[in-house]
Order: sequence, then structure tokens, then C-alpha cells
Amino acid sequence: MSRKILTAEEIYESSEVLANDSEISFLGTIDEEGYPHIKALMKAKNNSLEEIWMSTGTSSEKTKQLENNSKTCVYFVNFEKFAGLMLLGETIPKRDSESRNLIWSEGDEQYYPQGVEDPNYTVFHFTAKIGRYYFRRRWPTFKIPSKKKQ
Amino acid sequence: MSRKILTAEEIYESSEVLANDSEISFLGTIDEEGYPHIKALMKAKNNSLEEIWMSTGTSSEKTKQLENNSKTCVYFVNFEKFAGLMLLGETIPKRDSESRNLIWSEGDEQYYPQGVEDPNYTVFHFTAKIGRYYFRRRWPTFKIPSKKKQ
Repeated sequence: MSRKILTAEEIYESSEVLANDSEISFLGTIDEEGYPHIKALMKAKNNSLEEIWMSTGTSSEKTKQLENNSKTCVYFVNFEKFAGLMLLGETIPKRDSESRNLIWSEGDEQYYPQGVEDPNYTVFHFTAKIGRYYFRRRWPTFKIPSKKKQ
Repeated sequence: MSRKILTAEEIYESSEVLANDSEISFLGTIDEEGYPHIKALMKAKNNSLEEIWMSTGTSSEKTKQLENNSKTCVYFVNFEKFAGLMLLGETIPKRDSESRNLIWSEGDEQYYPQGVEDPNYTVFHFTAKIGRYYFRRRWPTFKIPSKKKQ
């Protein structure tokens, strides 16, 4: 192909745009028998590529999976651009007030009738260490955070 | 909620419709360090929920992952209906002529210039044993194949 190859900086920036613009994240976890699981979840918040916060109505089983095995991936995809981003890292289920309030938003009462302190309300906090950006039949892998901002 | 709960048969049938109608599948694999990976792939063909065939341009690394660990999941999602289907099972990479010809379709030459016998052309053959249908805040799990057709 004649299109130019993205630089490392362009890859990181394109990945950030994809993560920032995505409302949906795909969370990959591992069950007690060693099978990977995938579930689409609303992305509640992200700090560049470094941290992703999600909440879920199916929290009980996933929470147990994550307590057993925190190795996870978060995947974002833009089908119009044929671009995908996979982040590998660890997800920790959190129930403290700070985490709850960080991502709580209006309308969440429909899922958690008792509000931000609803006992079913769990926040999944993902921290990435590796990223991979799928674009134009390449899939460069990079560390997170990159050094580009230092 | 007042909506009626789906019967086991309705769950299986809704799952089949979702798998049949999906052009995109999300394949979950496990890497050599035990992290789950997710990648969107074109679904080439499916036999109800029992078997899914996919091909990919990123076959070399995925093939190695699958040869190390065949435990996989295939996920389909319909955001308009808020429905998701997760299938758990095994994926085997195949390169025999029968598998290649089974899913080869016009236009694949753009990815595999040497055609159906292109050495990079690998077919992923997934066989499901467990299904889970996410719908209306429930996620019933069922065996595959079900007994409904006997």
C-alpha cells in the first residue's frame, strides 16, 4: 500500500482519540475454567489510555472473576475507520465512595435504584500497560504511558 | 420489569438470530502471559450456534495463540436491541483445502493475493459448547447444541 505508515506518536494519538470517542468498551476477562469472556459495557470515563472506568449491571459474576484474575483487556473499535484498539492490563472492582462518585451519572438510578450507594453498584477500574492499535493491516504494540508527554 | 421472561427455546432462537445476522464477531483468545485478547473479525459462516468460521489478516500471531490455547469465546452484539451473545468453546486454526474453500469468497484476493491457496490464509474454526444470552438484564447460560431440535 502506498499510504504512509503512522509514526509512534500518531499511533498513540489515534488510539487516544478512539478511546476518548468510544461510548462502548468491550471488556475481556478470564473465568475460573480459563476461558476468555467478552462483554460490551458502557465506558464511564477514561484518563487517556492509562485508566478506564466502567460500571455494569452484571457485576456480581464479573467481580468474582476479576477478584480471581485481574488480567483483562479493554477493546475499542471504530468500524467506519476500520480501526481497533486493544489495551492490556489489570481491572480492579471498587466499591469505595470516591470511585462510585467519580463515574456516577444521572440516569444510573434505573439500574441502581438506591443510587450511588446501592450495594450492587460496582466500579471496574482498568489500568493499561500495553496498547495495540489495529489500522491499515498493521497492529503496532506500545507501552502505556508512552514517553511522548514528558 | 413487567416484560415476560424468555423461555429456554426463545433464548436459543434469539441467540441463533443474533449469530446469523451478525457480520462481525469478536474473538476472545488468551496470550502466552495469560491475558485475554479481543479482536473484531468478519464472521465468514456459521452453523447455528454450534460452529463459527472466521478468517483474518492477522493470522500469524493469533494462530500461535490458538495453538497454545484453544479456549476461546465468540461474542456478538446488537446495540439496537441491547442484546449480546457470548459463546464459549474451542477454536482450531485450519489450513486444509476443504476449510479454505468452505469460507473463501470473492474479494478475499485483496487480503490474500495468491487466492484460496495463499499460505497466509488461515481459517479459524470455532466450536461452541456453552452459550450465554444477554438481554433485558438477564444472562441465561445454556448448553450447545440444545436438545430442542431432537
